[in-house]
Amino acid sequence: MPRAVAGPEIERLIQLLARLPGLGPRSARRAALALVKKKDLLLAPLASAMTVAAERIVTCSVCGNVDTADPCTICTDASRDARTIVVVEDVADLWALERAGAIDARYHVLGGTLSPLDGVGPDDLTIDALVARCAGGEVSEVIIAVNATVDGQATAHVIMDRLAGLPVKVSRLAHGVPVGGELDYLDEGTLSAAIRARTPL
Amino acid sequence: MPRAVAGPEIERLIQLLARLPGLGPRSARRAALALVKKKDLLLAPLASAMTVAAERIVTCSVCGNVDTADPCTICTDASRDARTIVVVEDVADLWALERAGAIDARYHVLGGTLSPLDGVGPDDLTIDALVARCAGGEVSEVIIAVNATVDGQATAHVIMDRLAGLPVKVSRLAHGVPVGGELDYLDEGTLSAAIRARTPL
Repeated sequence: MPRAVAGPEIERLIQLLARLPGLGPRSARRAALALVKKKDLLLAPLASAMTVAAERIVTCSVCGNVDTADPCTICTDASRDARTIVVVEDVADLWALERAGAIDARYHVLGGTLSPLDGVGPDDLTIDALVARCAGGEVSEVIIAVNATVDGQATAHVIMDRLAGLPVKVSRLAHGVPVGGELDYLDEGTLSAAIRARTPL
Repeated sequence: MPRAVAGPEIERLIQLLARLPGLGPRSARRAALALVKKKDLLLAPLASAMTVAAERIVTCSVCGNVDTADPCTICTDASRDARTIVVVEDVADLWALERAGAIDARYHVLGGTLSPLDGVGPDDLTIDALVARCAGGEVSEVIIAVNATVDGQATAHVIMDRLAGLPVKVSRLAHGVPVGGELDYLDEGTLSAAIRARTPL
């Protein structure tokens, strides 16, 4: 533990900043110093933006998205296709799909993947809520957009099993060559999947 | 510009976080999501720490350090040697020397280095204030601890010129092999300086 060099207010700022992903102790110090130097331009606006966020951001009780409204803007957006639900692991994945403008549907955030080694079972995810949403009769398709990892695929299988009796079509994201990707750098699994799922021209 | 995927409160948080050194747009999104997820443990404490810092942190009118008091804790610390002033470019350098516990003296923060190409002249730094501190008669030594860069060394020369008529000893940091450093990886300038300044054993 290096000795404290600034006052307790700055030290506390550094300690809290160091807990952000992507910032270590050294970069947290740099960030704190930048904040203190740009007090009016950066520190004060960031403090108020964080206060507003802490007061107003809630988790959507329907889909698990974070927003200032519950249900969230996406769940209440009438222009979106309410019959399709895209199942993602995390809000970050929802944001990624929205940035891509990939689909105008509703979402369902699982809150992680099944991971027996870490003690994460089906009850720790929002699978029951997903089944309840699909049992309502309004949903006709569920697109499972979990990561293409072992845990993600195991989670996808459990979800498929749970949705088996319901009148919904279940699909998953296509595997294949990333757009802009070079074959030489891709793994065997991706190349085999891309061959198997080849599209006629 | 990717399309906004979260509400305006989160988007504003992401934009402000992205202006911190070391965080780009992508890592700012990750940081914002981590903050929103750990609302009580991280977001709210950070918001209040920033509010406190924005309200209470000031720049020391004597040395240029940042603290909640003016003059700062270091300038008013009677246990420190008030006859020695360590001149640094930036508060970050002051923090680095304090972390190392290198010396129990006072400091003087220049606020940068001379850089004619960037339009930074002697009047943009706190050199006048340093000369005034040294003219008071209380100071007997000035240690110039600027970076060993071209701009830093030019600044050191200007400071030495300005202090020439005053009854203060002026020194600079030693050049040499960094502790733990390997000769094979050091540049010629450092090696030559280390030979010239060799110490008898």
